[in-house]
Formats: sequence, structure tokens, C-alpha cells
Amino acid sequence: MTELPPNKEGAIVRYGVTRRWSDLVAYRGVAYFVEVPDDPTASAESQFRQVLSQIDVRLKLVGSNREKLLSAMIYLPDPSDLALFNAIWDEWVPQGHAPSRACVHTPLAAPGYRVELVLTAACADPLP
Amino acid sequence: MTELPPNKEGAIVRYGVTRRWSDLVAYRGVAYFVEVPDDPTASAESQFRQVLSQIDVRLKLVGSNREKLLSAMIYLPDPSDLALFNAIWDEWVPQGHAPSRACVHTPLAAPGYRVELVLTAACADPLP
Amino acid sequence: MTELPPNKEGAIVRYGVTRRWSDLVAYRGVAYFVEVPDDPTASAESQFRQVLSQIDVRLKLVGSNREKLLSAMIYLPDPSDLALFNAIWDEWVPQGHAPSRACVHTPLAAPGYRVELVLTAACADPLP
Repeated sequence: MTELPPNKEGAIVRYGVTRRWSDLVAYRGVAYFVEVPDDPTASAESQFRQVLSQIDVRLKLVGSNREKLLSAMIYLPDPSDLALFNAIWDEWVPQGHAPSRACVHTPLAAPGYRVELVLTAACADPLP
Repeated sequence: MTELPPNKEGAIVRYGVTRRWSDLVAYRGVAYFVEVPDDPTASAESQFRQVLSQIDVRLKLVGSNREKLLSAMIYLPDPSDLALFNAIWDEWVPQGHAPSRACVHTPLAAPGYRVELVLTAACADPLP
Repeated sequence: MTELPPNKEGAIVRYGVTRRWSDLVAYRGVAYFVEVPDDPTASAESQFRQVLSQIDVRLKLVGSNREKLLSAMIYLPDPSDLALFNAIWDEWVPQGHAPSRACVHTPLAAPGYRVELVLTAACADPLP
């Protein structure tokens, strides 16, 4: 976790920083993050449930939760997974709090993954 | 439309909320939204004009307009539609106010649609 | 470069404005921008180095730098370019400051380009 004051009004806070990416970046009350399922060898259903649970855990870190998602970009490589993904998604999204959402079908960089989500959410400011 | 105060400085306001997505989410002066044409059976030209009109209507809801777009991510499934889309886009964008823009070719989740746009715009804060 | 006060708290500032897009749009301390390599006829390696240099130049305009990237969406049309892109990316990203990152494989709108990046970064507010 790294703090960077880019100017007097906002710090950049990074979580899960690796050489290549950070798991989440928070700035001025917005969290930017990307999730793929932890286990790319699991079934599509397991992966979809897994990745949504990971979002819950990630959001908790920044004083947020699934009611505070702003946008979700869903990359679903296999079009035949769409109905199953939507069924699990619809259960998971809290009624009245759905984010803006788009979904397209495109190959992901890492094989095995059945979904990749690019997300923004409102988060605590200052962070907990 | 739902209001959620995630912290003392910003409320999340959602428009057109369904089980699966919201048509637009506004937070701290930024609107996050996605548009597909209302009629996926229309011609490419009709769909492109339609979706840009929809953006105008959507932005008006949050005290904004097409001069205030920040970013546009354009998913255009058929590469041969690009020239036509660009011609209609170029007419529509107000001179001097073009957003940041990217365009890639990828299949969309819903058949028939010739374009899907993922957008951010500056909006009124507080909202009208 | 155009200034638009959408409300009392934030101005939209655009850089490199054309009929179709702006090279960068800054608003409330966030820069929204898209980069493709200047020379689509260069080798993949040259294009990858080129596009990352372009990001450095672009960020400098808004009082920012590569330590302040928030998110990077990478569109890499050729999956076989991934290892090379990652090697150059990993060298370029400052340790401890990696952005949120996603990468998918999809054809770009303009032929020749080996990569397109959609980026957000923290920038100075007010701008320099």
C-alpha cells in the first residue's frame, strides 16, 4: 500500500501492488480495480461465484461494498456463458443499486479464465 | 433513482435501475453510463443516430450535455461499420469538445446491436 | 485546449482536440486519455516502447507522471505479443506504483497498431 499526494486534495492509495499491476487503486473517493477468478481451473459457475466474492472482499478494504459499484465492464470470452453469468450476477447485485454495466465477448490474456471484470466503486474518503 | 451517501462528500445517484444494471450512475460530478441503440433491428445508420440521441437525453437528466463528455469507449462489432459510424460521430461531437476516445472491434453480448458505447461525462453536482 | 466550467467545482480541460477525439481530458484531478503508438509501421517492440514514452509526455502536460496512473485497459490484438509487451511494461512501471490493469485480445479500429491503451491518471488540480 503506497500513498502519493499528487496535489493538496487527493492521495493515491494502492492495494496488492505487484510489478505489473495493483489489485485496487483508490483516489478521491473512487476505487479502480480489476478482478479475475482466483482459480482458472474451476468450472464457469465456480469462477463466477468466486469473482463476485472477491469483489466483496476487495471493496471491504476501502470501506465500500457492492451497493456502491459505479461501473462494471464485463469481458466474457465464451458467449455461451452469458446466461449463467447473468443469473449469478442478478442474484448478487443488491436490488436498487446496480452499476452501469457493459458486456462484450473477447479473448482474455490469461487462458482458463471465464470472465474478467473492470470495475469502479465509490469508496471511503479518507480511507479507513 | 436511489441516493446513497458513501461518505460525507458524495452521494451515488442511480437512474433507470434494473435488476442487472443502471442506465446511469452519477457520483461526485461524474456520470458513468453505457448506451446501446434502442432498436437493434434498425439499420446501422439508424442505430448510430439513435444511440447518439439517447446520449443527449441521458445527459440532460444529470444537468449535462454532449459538450461535457470525458471519455468514450466504442465497441463496434463489424469493422466495416467504422467509416459510417465515424461520419455520424464527427457531425455529432461539438467542435472543440471531443472526449477521449477508443474504438475496438469485438462481439457484443446482445445480437443485432451494431455499437455499444461506454461513457463518462461531467455532470451537475449537486444534481438538478 | 478548451475550458468548460460544468459547475462551480470543476472545469473540463481538453488537450489535442480534433474533430473526433481529444488526446487527453482532465477534470477534477483525473486525466482520461487513450494512446496508440505514433508509428503503426514500426516493430512490436518499437511500438510498445513508443506508446509508453508517449504516456510520459502526455502526463507531464497535466502535472502528472507514470507514478500516478490509476487504471490501464490494454487492448492487444495479437496474443503472441503479450510476453514482449509485459516485459517492456514491467520495466516501465515504477515499483510500488502500478495501476489497476486489464488486458484483452481484440482487433483495433486502425490496422498496424500492435496495442491501444485506455488510461486514467491523477493529475494536478488546478492544472499547471
